[in-house]
Amino acid sequence: MSASTQRTDRTTTTAAPASGAEAIPTPTGPAPTAPVPPGPAPTVPDGDPHLDVDAVTRALLGQWAETRDQARERAARPEMHRPLDATVAEHRARVFAQMQTLAKENVSWPMLPEHLGGPNDNGANVAGFEELVVADPSLQIKAGVQWGLFTSAILQLGTEEHHHTWIPDAMSLETPGAFAMTEIGHGSDVQSLGTTATYDTEAEEWVIHTPFRAATKDYLGNAAIHARAATVFARLITRGVDHGVHCFYVPVRDGSGELLPGVHSEDDGEKGGLNGIDNGRLAFDHVRVPRTNLLNRYGDVAADGTYTSPIDSPGRRFFTMLGTLVQGRVSLDGSANRASQLALTIALTYASQRRQFSAASPTEETVLLDYQSHLSRLLPKLAATYAGTFAHEQLLQAFDDVFSGRGDNPEAREDLETLAAALKPTSTNLALDTIQECREACGGQGFLAENQLVGLHQDLDVYATFEGDNTVLLQLVAKRLLADYTHDLKSIDRAGIGRFIAQRADVLAHRHTPWGRLVQTASDAGNARRSSETLRQAEVQEHLLAERARVKVEEVALALRSAGKMDPATAAALVNKHQVEMLDAARAHADLVRWRAFTAGIAQIEDEGSRQILTDVRDLFGLTLLQDDLAWYLLNGQLSTQRGRQVAVDIKRLLWRLRLHVADLVAAFDVRPGHLRAPIALGAEKERQDEAAAYHRAQRASADAPVSEKALAAERKKQQKAQRPSGTR
Amino acid sequence: MSASTQRTDRTTTTAAPASGAEAIPTPTGPAPTAPVPPGPAPTVPDGDPHLDVDAVTRALLGQWAETRDQARERAARPEMHRPLDATVAEHRARVFAQMQTLAKENVSWPMLPEHLGGPNDNGANVAGFEELVVADPSLQIKAGVQWGLFTSAILQLGTEEHHHTWIPDAMSLETPGAFAMTEIGHGSDVQSLGTTATYDTEAEEWVIHTPFRAATKDYLGNAAIHARAATVFARLITRGVDHGVHCFYVPVRDGSGELLPGVHSEDDGEKGGLNGIDNGRLAFDHVRVPRTNLLNRYGDVAADGTYTSPIDSPGRRFFTMLGTLVQGRVSLDGSANRASQLALTIALTYASQRRQFSAASPTEETVLLDYQSHLSRLLPKLAATYAGTFAHEQLLQAFDDVFSGRGDNPEAREDLETLAAALKPTSTNLALDTIQECREACGGQGFLAENQLVGLHQDLDVYATFEGDNTVLLQLVAKRLLADYTHDLKSIDRAGIGRFIAQRADVLAHRHTPWGRLVQTASDAGNARRSSETLRQAEVQEHLLAERARVKVEEVALALRSAGKMDPATAAALVNKHQVEMLDAARAHADLVRWRAFTAGIAQIEDEGSRQILTDVRDLFGLTLLQDDLAWYLLNGQLSTQRGRQVAVDIKRLLWRLRLHVADLVAAFDVRPGHLRAPIALGAEKERQDEAAAYHRAQRASADAPVSEKALAAERKKQQKAQRPSGTR
Repeated sequence: MSASTQRTDRTTTTAAPASGAEAIPTPTGPAPTAPVPPGPAPTVPDGDPHLDVDAVTRALLGQWAETRDQARERAARPEMHRPLDATVAEHRARVFAQMQTLAKENVSWPMLPEHLGGPNDNGANVAGFEELVVADPSLQIKAGVQWGLFTSAILQLGTEEHHHTWIPDAMSLETPGAFAMTEIGHGSDVQSLGTTATYDTEAEEWVIHTPFRAATKDYLGNAAIHARAATVFARLITRGVDHGVHCFYVPVRDGSGELLPGVHSEDDGEKGGLNGIDNGRLAFDHVRVPRTNLLNRYGDVAADGTYTSPIDSPGRRFFTMLGTLVQGRVSLDGSANRASQLALTIALTYASQRRQFSAASPTEETVLLDYQSHLSRLLPKLAATYAGTFAHEQLLQAFDDVFSGRGDNPEAREDLETLAAALKPTSTNLALDTIQECREACGGQGFLAENQLVGLHQDLDVYATFEGDNTVLLQLVAKRLLADYTHDLKSIDRAGIGRFIAQRADVLAHRHTPWGRLVQTASDAGNARRSSETLRQAEVQEHLLAERARVKVEEVALALRSAGKMDPATAAALVNKHQVEMLDAARAHADLVRWRAFTAGIAQIEDEGSRQILTDVRDLFGLTLLQDDLAWYLLNGQLSTQRGRQVAVDIKRLLWRLRLHVADLVAAFDVRPGHLRAPIALGAEKERQDEAAAYHRAQRASADAPVSEKALAAERKKQQKAQRPSGTR
Repeated sequence: MSASTQRTDRTTTTAAPASGAEAIPTPTGPAPTAPVPPGPAPTVPDGDPHLDVDAVTRALLGQWAETRDQARERAARPEMHRPLDATVAEHRARVFAQMQTLAKENVSWPMLPEHLGGPNDNGANVAGFEELVVADPSLQIKAGVQWGLFTSAILQLGTEEHHHTWIPDAMSLETPGAFAMTEIGHGSDVQSLGTTATYDTEAEEWVIHTPFRAATKDYLGNAAIHARAATVFARLITRGVDHGVHCFYVPVRDGSGELLPGVHSEDDGEKGGLNGIDNGRLAFDHVRVPRTNLLNRYGDVAADGTYTSPIDSPGRRFFTMLGTLVQGRVSLDGSANRASQLALTIALTYASQRRQFSAASPTEETVLLDYQSHLSRLLPKLAATYAGTFAHEQLLQAFDDVFSGRGDNPEAREDLETLAAALKPTSTNLALDTIQECREACGGQGFLAENQLVGLHQDLDVYATFEGDNTVLLQLVAKRLLADYTHDLKSIDRAGIGRFIAQRADVLAHRHTPWGRLVQTASDAGNARRSSETLRQAEVQEHLLAERARVKVEEVALALRSAGKMDPATAAALVNKHQVEMLDAARAHADLVRWRAFTAGIAQIEDEGSRQILTDVRDLFGLTLLQDDLAWYLLNGQLSTQRGRQVAVDIKRLLWRLRLHVADLVAAFDVRPGHLRAPIALGAEKERQDEAAAYHRAQRASADAPVSEKALAAERKKQQKAQRPSGTR
């Protein structure tokens, strides 16, 4: 049949000549006159609420909106971006050059206190650095090492003379520095570090020494190449007494970059990500520094070797020193949320344009985001990212309050540390899950480096275990919650405690019987609608989340109540037998904090429509938390089966309702061109879909386009039927 | 105080001179005479069962043990290993050289059928290739592209002349080939591909053409550089009729590697992993190939353009062609399990040696694996990996049965495809979760490339979305389960169906009331011990898992029962509203399959002790499945709250019981030196711990070691107390 041959030949003549071996030519099928969008984007029906994107963006930007705006402009500059297919060496060199730009632009000036000519605006400083994560996480972290850790240690643990001596060069990057805390053998347990700093009275010098391989400092940014100095954490030993871990300023390389005598360095080499940073090891072979190189704010040694400290208790002294370094956790929390925003922007934009399978229409394939499974894998992450962003703003404000001195007291510091310890694991885990889900939701495109998702996952991976391992941080939170609980107990008198425990135990036992649940079941029964509305009410969600956090702590507290009377080993074994529940209680606490922050954040938005839509998002967040722990709610009689079943139903409804607002909810993240570099989220996919749709439309309109064998067979059947005498049917 | 100064100086004199800037010297602290292990490894008490490692290894090796053994030796050879810090170009060159070695060693010979001089031993062929994943996943996948896809397409879709013409060069790598199925715009929906192959009767040639950008072939291994030919999937159009997707053999580069006229290629560039493979795009601008280049086993065109096929239905013909390519999914399932084994070997070995925090003892820190949270994050993954490995063996045997011809019939093929579609998503998701958990469980060490975990995650990442996107595959499984369910319905007569549905609806409604649960609750009440034993019984676990799989399918089937009477768009919308439950049902099915395979695998082991321990592992797997879906069991009245609460208790018990056998359970994976290249799992950590312990022991024994400020303060308090007159106490 020559018709098809002819048509093929015709299109051949219009084909552009092959212009180069490595370029794919513009398509040469029946040329569409103009690309036509493959279908209308879902629109919000009249009368339904609309999201005021600007208003929501402002709410998300928070108190340091202006700083964030400038930082976002900076992060959008091409010279700040993560390179593709760079060697470790190339990437390191690039990031070091970017650091010099930041130093020249005096980006970290807000962190400086008044006596160094700065504004002591810690919130602005951290807010600005967080935003770098969308340029290149290596840059964010290398800047964090230089200014957030190395410089900060001098600032927070040193005294004024130290500040004037070392901080200007640290700020200008004249002295790139390493923060030498972690050792190969001790990361989370800083108190047990092995490096020693022994005072030599005669020479009035410290002897810094690495006594065994496990005490080698490891994973230090700047250590492999760039560091000229390091803030080294070591056990302060003077007059035969070990006063525990203190921090020392130790030069490690000379002006030409050669290691100083006794200082040894190894390169950590290639890592899972963050390869723009020269992480490495440092070991010290009896390296001597002057007595005054001890950063002596919380502990000092006189020329004769006498140790003094403003804090009597060695334990409290240690935790006070560590507490000054909470900034790292705060900024990781912020950047993890920002990374989730970027990933969701990429995946949800692609999901709104990419089409697959045509069950719903013979001529038009279905957009990915119109599949229930796609909504349900991405929208709960979107909701949690909103929650995390609002919660981070609260954390940043708490941090700023304490470090500005306005709200600096031991209790506020402890609260700040607990909040950071609760949120940093939550947001960094969420970021990894979100990025991975986004990457998989983009299929093969998600695996290409140019679409940013794989690099983002690789870089953020270590956020889960550095600056406080997530498991260890959650354990800290649990301990604080238990201490609070015990403190509450202590405020009752001795007899009262006995009564109280007996009473709580009774309540718990009661909750474990089916009868408690039955009452609730009966009251809910047959009124699915009412119980549905109930779960969507803020007070109900808050009550359910607060009760869960409280009961989980209480159960652990009761289980551990005899630990105080045991020998340490037996007590440790008992605590260990409840470790999983402790972590679980800490997570429940973090969930409640995030839910409350989200709710408070919504209340501040004036636009009614935006509040309505964000309340749906908040409900999706709250209900997802209930769903993820539904067995607990059912087992503890906090939800009847009737209500329990309603959770999934409500979530489904919310998913479809929010479907209409996805584009706006993503737009409010304010991920700008330059942050967003993934071609699939910058129009490439839309262009391809439009072009393919136009081709198929032209084919359908064309008289000599091939017909499908399937259609022919169906047609033939129909004709056979029609030709049969009607009586035989 | 000169004592400490003196001691410091003394150690200084024994210090080795700094030997090189980049080397960290051997430690110079008080030298231990010999390293002493930091504590006894947990030993299995006498009388308790022991694991016979060899017996379990043999069970895991399965039917093709000898092939696997040889393949493991091959994978252990250094020249086969994934490079560290290589550029994309270097890595690609390395893998191509490894491919040539494999070709020279005739590794894929077992896949050849008798008429090509081979044994047609498909099981052995796949088993051998799976093992390459621990050498370098890029090598495994590049080999899979060349022999498992490109060569297999010629073999399965072509006829004998094609075999003799092209297969020898494909086998020898004389013709590196691309498997050009996926397009930018169509991955999972192969049926809708856009590439056309139009028959030109006069020239007796096919015109292969890419009509629009979205129809460009993408993500093809070998396409960017190495491929000389491609098996191209395109719509076969002849005499004006589109007969759907068929496969064509198309040369793409000449002998010198230059692209042939009309063939265009782009490089996919850097990817998230598998950078040893030159993935790329191919587009065709009216490229002509002879008529006989159609791989014509399932559809042929005569010189005059007449189309014929042994299979009448175009739909069935298409799925038959695709079905011949199931091998890719089978081998990904196997290699994903092997990757999990490697990751667990690294993390569990490290966790058995690394120590952290000393709550349990004043002198000895606790081994990571003795923390409950560490056991609970890793052991369920170990259990699931055992389950996955046994399930894979069943899949591989099913594959071999069909492809050897011994058990080749349409039903067996469909069963095989469903099994592959169920297991491939399960094992690839498990591998990603396991590797990530292992990486985080190793802290900073886990993030170093040398410790293998990050590279393994990067490479395995795409296993979740290629060779059938996991979500799409699970949907396939769900459809098959629904079809089976409907088929069962069809075997009842018309009136019977009505009765059946009414009855099932009644049962479901009943299950949703609390009364059904109450009965069970009452019968369990007050007998935690009995219900505990019950959950550990194999029949109970199987019943619970089987019921879940059945009920979940049934619920979807009932929810969709009206879809048949709807117009396609409405029906599609209804199905979409239940998509999440469909995927959930498919997962429940896969869980049941894995549980049964594990149980069957254990039964084949003769050693009684090994059977007992593996039964604990199987129970851990089964109970973890129950726990992960506990809300469902409670909501559906399949478990009482009493039993529901028992699940977590039993899991905890199993974790501690299995703690003793972790080393043996890992050893049975037979991950050999050469596979295991992570220094942290090869003794480096143990050496460091031993050395540190010896140092601390020597310190404790030494008279002039520093005493801690804390200890001094405690001592002072004690003395003050002693000096106080006893009456005042």
